Amino acid sequence: MSGVVERRHATADRRFFERAGPFTAEALAEAAGGDLLPPREGGFPEGGFTGIGPLQAAGPTELSFLDNRRYAAALDDTQAGLVIVAKAFASRVPPGCGAIVVAQPYLAWSRVARMFHPAPKARAGVHATAVIAASAQVDASCEVGPFAVIGEGVEIGAGTIIGPHAVIGDGVRIGADCRISAQVVLSHAVLGDRVILFPGARVGQDGFGFAVGPQGFETVPQLGVVILEDGVEIGANSTIDRGSVQDTVIGAGSRLDNLVQIGHNARLGKGCIVVSQAGISGSTELGDYVTIAAQAGLIGHIKIGTKARVGAQCGVMSDVEAGADVIGSPAMPFREFFRNVATLRRLSRRPGVEEGADDSQSEGKGGA
Amino acid sequence: MSGVVERRHATADRRFFERAGPFTAEALAEAAGGDLLPPREGGFPEGGFTGIGPLQAAGPTELSFLDNRRYAAALDDTQAGLVIVAKAFASRVPPGCGAIVVAQPYLAWSRVARMFHPAPKARAGVHATAVIAASAQVDASCEVGPFAVIGEGVEIGAGTIIGPHAVIGDGVRIGADCRISAQVVLSHAVLGDRVILFPGARVGQDGFGFAVGPQGFETVPQLGVVILEDGVEIGANSTIDRGSVQDTVIGAGSRLDNLVQIGHNARLGKGCIVVSQAGISGSTELGDYVTIAAQAGLIGHIKIGTKARVGAQCGVMSDVEAGADVIGSPAMPFREFFRNVATLRRLSRRPGVEEGADDSQSEGKGGA
Amino acid sequence: MSGVVERRHATADRRFFERAGPFTAEALAEAAGGDLLPPREGGFPEGGFTGIGPLQAAGPTELSFLDNRRYAAALDDTQAGLVIVAKAFASRVPPGCGAIVVAQPYLAWSRVARMFHPAPKARAGVHATAVIAASAQVDASCEVGPFAVIGEGVEIGAGTIIGPHAVIGDGVRIGADCRISAQVVLSHAVLGDRVILFPGARVGQDGFGFAVGPQGFETVPQLGVVILEDGVEIGANSTIDRGSVQDTVIGAGSRLDNLVQIGHNARLGKGCIVVSQAGISGSTELGDYVTIAAQAGLIGHIKIGTKARVGAQCGVMSDVEAGADVIGSPAMPFREFFRNVATLRRLSRRPGVEEGADDSQSEGKGGA
Repeated sequence: MSGVVERRHATADRRFFERAGPFTAEALAEAAGGDLLPPREGGFPEGGFTGIGPLQAAGPTELSFLDNRRYAAALDDTQAGLVIVAKAFASRVPPGCGAIVVAQPYLAWSRVARMFHPAPKARAGVHATAVIAASAQVDASCEVGPFAVIGEGVEIGAGTIIGPHAVIGDGVRIGADCRISAQVVLSHAVLGDRVILFPGARVGQDGFGFAVGPQGFETVPQLGVVILEDGVEIGANSTIDRGSVQDTVIGAGSRLDNLVQIGHNARLGKGCIVVSQAGISGSTELGDYVTIAAQAGLIGHIKIGTKARVGAQCGVMSDVEAGADVIGSPAMPFREFFRNVATLRRLSRRPGVEEGADDSQSEGKGGA
Repeated sequence: MSGVVERRHATADRRFFERAGPFTAEALAEAAGGDLLPPREGGFPEGGFTGIGPLQAAGPTELSFLDNRRYAAALDDTQAGLVIVAKAFASRVPPGCGAIVVAQPYLAWSRVARMFHPAPKARAGVHATAVIAASAQVDASCEVGPFAVIGEGVEIGAGTIIGPHAVIGDGVRIGADCRISAQVVLSHAVLGDRVILFPGARVGQDGFGFAVGPQGFETVPQLGVVILEDGVEIGANSTIDRGSVQDTVIGAGSRLDNLVQIGHNARLGKGCIVVSQAGISGSTELGDYVTIAAQAGLIGHIKIGTKARVGAQCGVMSDVEAGADVIGSPAMPFREFFRNVATLRRLSRRPGVEEGADDSQSEGKGGA
Repeated sequence: MSGVVERRHATADRRFFERAGPFTAEALAEAAGGDLLPPREGGFPEGGFTGIGPLQAAGPTELSFLDNRRYAAALDDTQAGLVIVAKAFASRVPPGCGAIVVAQPYLAWSRVARMFHPAPKARAGVHATAVIAASAQVDASCEVGPFAVIGEGVEIGAGTIIGPHAVIGDGVRIGADCRISAQVVLSHAVLGDRVILFPGARVGQDGFGFAVGPQGFETVPQLGVVILEDGVEIGANSTIDRGSVQDTVIGAGSRLDNLVQIGHNARLGKGCIVVSQAGISGSTELGDYVTIAAQAGLIGHIKIGTKARVGAQCGVMSDVEAGADVIGSPAMPFREFFRNVATLRRLSRRPGVEEGADDSQSEGKGGA
């Protein structure tokens, strides 16, 4: 193990990643949706392209990409046989290397990378150790891992993977082609198709609801469910509480990162992004395509408009308009926040202010 | 699954929730502790009330409530057969609907909702796959789920539920009527009665303790335990470290939300609330009935007085007096915080300040 | 269970903790690396020392320590038979008590505490319920707990403990003397020796990577791994995403607390500390011996220099120099942060500022 500290692992090391291919330059260009430029010297490798890698590491039978102009120098020296680039960089591709010219290199890269490394497919079958209730309906094409527990009345669609130790509570419905990773606990929930829950996600447990009685807190039963629409992804160890009277809803295609908290009755629109360690309190509603950056927090019962962007560590205490960019705690427009930062820095640096002399000066001047 | 996006689920959908009842209006009024007013037109349903729901959705055999005057318009149009309301709204109840008039509608609602939907009871029995040490004493009335692991010398009181995959370490004591949810890991701990641990809570692992030695960090053994007093609730994926020399203690009736962190040796009094993603560092002490809002952080070795309230995202670096309301990072009184926000906003808007002209003005004046 | 609220548990209660010993004063002094002073009255206990405890609770056959001068009064009254103290306090040790005089009492204490309570050793053997792939190589000295799942091609070194319900994905390599606690999920990773993962840690899942396509987000395959070098510790429910193209690396001896998030491609140097609920975004690099305090957040693609210290709740948006101390959101030097706090407090208190009169004054003066 002494060698662990060295970086011995190639991108997509075969020890960990399966690989499809090889693919021809033409097939890759088609997948990328770009124009194929052959190398100015020599041709494409006879056997096609066998894999992908970063510019620094890719070899003659591998494909790479340039997305960030900061790394343009690496393009000059790359040994890759084919690169995905924007038009502006096509002329900098080395003579022995082909190019796929596209408008959005990162998007094209994601597609080509998925050709070589498609998402894992269900290997149909139920592990002998899984415990599945008699009334559960699990499609024959599903993969169910060791020690999974599937409750009464559960329905699971075709091609879905249920990982090791996943616990699916009574009545839960899961669509097709979902991936419920290891050690997810899922209850009181309905999932669309292509939903991915990463390890340790907790979905559907009781919301944090209680009334204050004379003897202490009294639990308010949480009687809604969680709805995760098609294509939703929930990160590792994130927690999504079920609704109290209505439902908690995560709109189609929304992606939540790790350690995110979603309170009861919250409703997220389609295509929202919630980055790691952010929290959305109960009954708050997000429109479509809202972005919540890392560690931001939203209080309950507010509305965030479509395409609004909430910055990292932002504390949102009131509604945010559609399209707005806010940051700070309490939240304010980006410009205002950074103007405040600059103002305070300047005021703190004024010698008079620092020494407390400014006050007396003002008074002196006031008396002048 | 295409219909998932539609809201098809009634409150307390029978697919997910068991339901008691029906109950008479009189029985509900008694549970609510309020005065029963019959409908001004017609009478109560013959078969009693069968369920509960929000004002917008409840039908003639269902009960609803109004707690927030913001939703009073929904009261006018409700089809519910019975509503819980405060005195001020009794006259707005539709003529065909009865009323239970109470001082605290939300508290009354919580009680009636628990009549229809009581907390799940243990179904006595140990799943065949559970692994229980020979020396463990598990009451015959307990429910132990699939793949639970219960260590040597563990004691578990009557009526307690141990969920699927829960891991209970050697020597742990758990009182009566507790609920240890799926995939909880619990070690080095003593729990009172009626304690609830939600999925993925981690209780009793080593605190973050080390000394700095010449070769790097050296672990300090963590030799205390975690004590969760009667009625404590710990949210999903929250983490409570055991004490280093003393114990980590969560006082009776305190409720912690999801993703909360409690450091070693921390002591919370009775009836404290700690909202999602807040963190309390080692050896910090909270009095009784303290509220810590979401994402707040408390450094170690400080004291927070009884009934103090710490606002969302607050960073508490020193003691807080009993009854105080603090917010901001560093923490300050609520009034001071919002005054600071207003001051800074105003100063940033002054044209002279924005342009940097204020400094030269000051100098000019200073020289005058 | 009614007695739970009382503090009945001695430090290192034998119900929960195994105990080695007894040890002679001489052996303890040697382990502590200090000078042994016998009691001024009487002698050391005949049978040696049997345990450790805090000054207030330790008895005549137990050892204690004083590290913080705040607790010096407890030294005067201690019943302990032997204490570890700094030179300055040697004269305050009670007459019936011996002393071990050292330069760093806390470090010495950690070593003596580990003599009495060494870290748990693997009890060689695989639990009958564990599921281990045929191609996995698990050293015969390893302990594998109930319901553990170990994938194809996994390699696990001597003396490593795999806890109950741990899930080790295909191809993972784990060194010697590691402790993988209950309900860890580990995939796409290579671990050195003496690595500890606390319960619920998630290591190696997909990073949060996607491109924006015309129909929504498109997943970018995450093709790197996670490397945890020798002696790394990862707290309960923390999440470490694997790299996208390069690897995510945690340097030797670094310790991460609970609920910490590490994004894809992040690289931490040796001996870093990351306290609870802090988050490090993708591709950010930390030098050696960096400290990140609780709830701090670092954006992606920045560099933090060696021995820099990032304060609690700090929001770091740009590079931090080696040795710097920063705090605030956005991050700034400690001194600047507290100067800003003082400035703003003072400005908010100025009556003229509060009333809005300052603006008109300024204008008046400007016109003078």
